[in-house]
Amino acid sequence: MEAKALREKIRNGTFDRTTSGAAGDNVQANIVILPKSYAFDFLLYAMRNRKAVPVIEVMEDGKVESSYAEGSDIRTDVPKYNIYRDGKLKETVTDITEYWQDDFVTFLIGCSFTFEQALLEAGLEVKHIKEQKNVAMYRTNIPTEPAGIFSGELVVSMRPFKRELVEKASDVTAQFPDMHGRPVHHGEPSEIGIRDINAPEYGEPIDIDSDEEPVFWACGVTPQNAALNARPSIMITHNPGHMFVTDIKNEDYRKK
Amino acid sequence: MEAKALREKIRNGTFDRTTSGAAGDNVQANIVILPKSYAFDFLLYAMRNRKAVPVIEVMEDGKVESSYAEGSDIRTDVPKYNIYRDGKLKETVTDITEYWQDDFVTFLIGCSFTFEQALLEAGLEVKHIKEQKNVAMYRTNIPTEPAGIFSGELVVSMRPFKRELVEKASDVTAQFPDMHGRPVHHGEPSEIGIRDINAPEYGEPIDIDSDEEPVFWACGVTPQNAALNARPSIMITHNPGHMFVTDIKNEDYRKK
Repeated sequence: MEAKALREKIRNGTFDRTTSGAAGDNVQANIVILPKSYAFDFLLYAMRNRKAVPVIEVMEDGKVESSYAEGSDIRTDVPKYNIYRDGKLKETVTDITEYWQDDFVTFLIGCSFTFEQALLEAGLEVKHIKEQKNVAMYRTNIPTEPAGIFSGELVVSMRPFKRELVEKASDVTAQFPDMHGRPVHHGEPSEIGIRDINAPEYGEPIDIDSDEEPVFWACGVTPQNAALNARPSIMITHNPGHMFVTDIKNEDYRKK
Repeated sequence: MEAKALREKIRNGTFDRTTSGAAGDNVQANIVILPKSYAFDFLLYAMRNRKAVPVIEVMEDGKVESSYAEGSDIRTDVPKYNIYRDGKLKETVTDITEYWQDDFVTFLIGCSFTFEQALLEAGLEVKHIKEQKNVAMYRTNIPTEPAGIFSGELVVSMRPFKRELVEKASDVTAQFPDMHGRPVHHGEPSEIGIRDINAPEYGEPIDIDSDEEPVFWACGVTPQNAALNARPSIMITHNPGHMFVTDIKNEDYRKK
């Protein structure tokens, strides 16, 4: 589907599921919306944790249209939003117009869905796309570098691959350093603090077959975990897996 | 001279001239100090104008020691500071201890002195170093991308090279993308809005011989020009050419 048409379906409420596999070769973005008073701390947190939080656009206070998505409105064009108050997830909604504040700053953050397209093109099967599920995401015990009020552990997305294909998957994703790049871990989940691979903190669980290994990438949901510690009075994000679809192309982010 | 020893001489007032050519293979940094209320706008301005304003460290409010300079104190370890109030240069001092505010955030910004070392090692003569002068810097008519209150024209540093060596100089500096990288212009100064090559806005003029061409690089003094428009209540910077000397090495910034 063409990106603009997809955003319109999202806006009028006819598309509200995960955008994984739904936006072809268009860049999808994680979003974080915060009052300007928290914006410096957050931008610094992003800079210090670029693998997890690669900022692709900052929309300053007063701006609701992304430069990367013609005619878009960040208040309506994400399929599902999470609303955090004082660090607690309070509501999941499909439109944030009534919550909007004039001092809101929006951060668009790179997403692993970009390299999924490249994995598919390299002939690799991406299991959750094939099974039409959301990707599985986990909180790890890997610390991020704090900045101001923001700190916490890295969140990762997981994709299982047959053992002999793990290196190939790793190399393909390494070509997208601004979209989380190379995996942070593969193999034993407990080594990065994941207790139960069948109970992801975000998204949906996915079976790992005996000839497969779980592969873990830094994930743009990391700021939502940081919000638990930072407790900003309000922070609005996408609901994991339900991304903002831009007009720019995944291929533009492949390292030359 | 060893970096720490040089910082000590600067601190106790026995070194107050330009650091150009004085710090060997150590990274020298431009500095910008602002109250935290301006820090988001400035960090965003830096991100959007990375060629001119490549941030190498952000020292959050309350921090005076750089992670890249052991035992340093940003209030005393720069040879000369400029103090801007409401966008106007009010004073040039050698110590800012009495001006310090608890909400000050310090930005260390990459400097072309890093690639000068590489130019020398590549067998190229850097004229202002040979003549023991400060580098010549000019305001251009090239706009920067605004962010919040910050906007304005690019400031450039200039080094003359013999015509047949311009390309070599360009290629050497291109290896340091986080230290301003490749030149933005060479040849006719008026093409980038420089009226009088003998009257640089910052630093010292330098003669250009008939077999030489002026070569221009984006310069970390650009934020001082942006301050003229932004008019923050207070902004403290280094005095152009009088840099903060770190313990890290220029070579670490060469593109692999």
